[in-house]
Amino acid sequence: MPATSPARKPRIAVTMGDPAGVGPELCVRLLQDESLLQELTPIVFGDAGVLARVAKHLGWSFAAPIIRAADWPKGLEHLTQGTVFDLQYVAADEVIPCRVAANTGHAAFQYLERAIAAGLAGEIDGICTGPINKAALHAAGHHYPGHTEILAERMQVDRWCMMLTAPEITCSFVTAHVGYHEVPQLLSAERIGEVIDLTVAAMRRIRGREPKLICCGLNPHAGEDGLFGNREEERIIAPAVAAARARGVNIEGPLPPDTCFLTWRRADTDAFICMYHDQGHIPLKALAFDTAINTTLGLPVVRTSVDHGTAFDIAWRGIANPSSLFAAVRLAAQLSQTPVE
Amino acid sequence: MPATSPARKPRIAVTMGDPAGVGPELCVRLLQDESLLQELTPIVFGDAGVLARVAKHLGWSFAAPIIRAADWPKGLEHLTQGTVFDLQYVAADEVIPCRVAANTGHAAFQYLERAIAAGLAGEIDGICTGPINKAALHAAGHHYPGHTEILAERMQVDRWCMMLTAPEITCSFVTAHVGYHEVPQLLSAERIGEVIDLTVAAMRRIRGREPKLICCGLNPHAGEDGLFGNREEERIIAPAVAAARARGVNIEGPLPPDTCFLTWRRADTDAFICMYHDQGHIPLKALAFDTAINTTLGLPVVRTSVDHGTAFDIAWRGIANPSSLFAAVRLAAQLSQTPVE
Repeated sequence: MPATSPARKPRIAVTMGDPAGVGPELCVRLLQDESLLQELTPIVFGDAGVLARVAKHLGWSFAAPIIRAADWPKGLEHLTQGTVFDLQYVAADEVIPCRVAANTGHAAFQYLERAIAAGLAGEIDGICTGPINKAALHAAGHHYPGHTEILAERMQVDRWCMMLTAPEITCSFVTAHVGYHEVPQLLSAERIGEVIDLTVAAMRRIRGREPKLICCGLNPHAGEDGLFGNREEERIIAPAVAAARARGVNIEGPLPPDTCFLTWRRADTDAFICMYHDQGHIPLKALAFDTAINTTLGLPVVRTSVDHGTAFDIAWRGIANPSSLFAAVRLAAQLSQTPVE
Repeated sequence: MPATSPARKPRIAVTMGDPAGVGPELCVRLLQDESLLQELTPIVFGDAGVLARVAKHLGWSFAAPIIRAADWPKGLEHLTQGTVFDLQYVAADEVIPCRVAANTGHAAFQYLERAIAAGLAGEIDGICTGPINKAALHAAGHHYPGHTEILAERMQVDRWCMMLTAPEITCSFVTAHVGYHEVPQLLSAERIGEVIDLTVAAMRRIRGREPKLICCGLNPHAGEDGLFGNREEERIIAPAVAAARARGVNIEGPLPPDTCFLTWRRADTDAFICMYHDQGHIPLKALAFDTAINTTLGLPVVRTSVDHGTAFDIAWRGIANPSSLFAAVRLAAQLSQTPVE
């Protein structure tokens, strides 16, 4: 994707997420946030009727230009305001708030499909995905562990990884949505090297300088010289780190997973390379709940996401915190302004 | 172990740890801390010559009553001051500070052996162990992963677990010092139930009321209904939690490991039951580095420990933070005042 000219604000496709969750109300807030609209042009891929219904339900005033499916992508180049791309996959009165349902799961899936198509066509500069509900997705017959796997499949990418970033801590994942027991067999020096390189490239764009990384071990105390585990540190992780260093990457490790996230280490570390989901998600959620942004590295289109779910327990009540969505949209805009390496 | 009479301060054996590490200087500070000596009577199991040498080296004044090995346990019942039990396992001038060596590793091991014997004989009310160096221990021919395993073996206990406690968070461990890949096969409902019961008993003594526990899952998102893993949550963990509830334990779970440590959950949770070492150690170290106390549950003698190592990088310089040792000694005293269930 080419860098956009500084004269034009980045256009970010924001998928509305599951209509029964907190996605619609967050999108309404997004489309009315003056400060954010100065920086970028969000285009909500969703259903205008649902947005209008949630706004009315909450007593919020809401108005935004609408593009109908038949008109896309006409006039996109002149777009300067936050806009709704009205895909009409679900009628507003068919949405049952806070409920898992096939119709809303399917709509959420379709918003994403359309955003992917727009991204691959170069019509938008990046995608920020709103929260989907896995059970609703499955009820609609879409069997994916999450957004990331859909994106990787549709964009035909096999070299990608999940990265979560917050002011306090950033983690990239060598493995993520797999069972605990599957992790050791999925580790390879090649895969770890791939995640290191994707992370370095992303952090260069985010920080505007060479980043400093830490690579976690797999076993307690990083194996403690073979005392614990199958020497995954010596056989797999250390060679990957050494190879990355030989390529000029500023990376240390493998370090003991429990002490590598200490405050003083975090202070001068731009990102952690984590071997498995909870190794990075535990410190991320403990330290930076609500502020982490999920981004998928290695895709041909910039993609970020909120780091929370549909939150059916508080949806349609106007109390969901929009800061994660706002931060995710801003990061997508920032990443879209520098060319992918 | 019987509860001591409130009239007598608890006598806590404090092992000096590896003489080349930070243990000796921390013990010198401990023996001179007036506020702590009001609450309990520490007896440092170590070498008086080493304590004198480190105090002199640092320019600290230091004086404490000494008991020679031949005199033990004579007069213990009249002890009211912090005291050194001078075991003379290493000569002060044979210690090379900040260095891994067999002679200091062996001495550290012997201090612990003597403390265990004193504990089993009922001569002291609890043990607080100073930091040992695993490499030094191994160099001396003592092949243990750590203190806990030595204690469990010497005290002939097979139902025990490690618990780490800090004001911010407390975690007990179903498995700890084993390789990542070994964890799934070590999980059983029986073992998890054992750790739950040991933790409930300990937290009752610490909090003085019924504690509220959370049990972590093993897989990402606690398996998400079988999506990730081998249904360890449904097959093993959930039945253990249900059985504990049926015994009257206030416990919730299995919960997703990444979201169970969120601030608001921690606020009303007394302890977390963790399936593996880093599941609990990562949030513990990130949130409570320097303040966590390690305690071994299920032993016939109360045992606590500092939660840091020998810190050879800063040893013998007088800058090591004694707060973890002080807190650990205080917890040993507190636990020794209520009868083991």
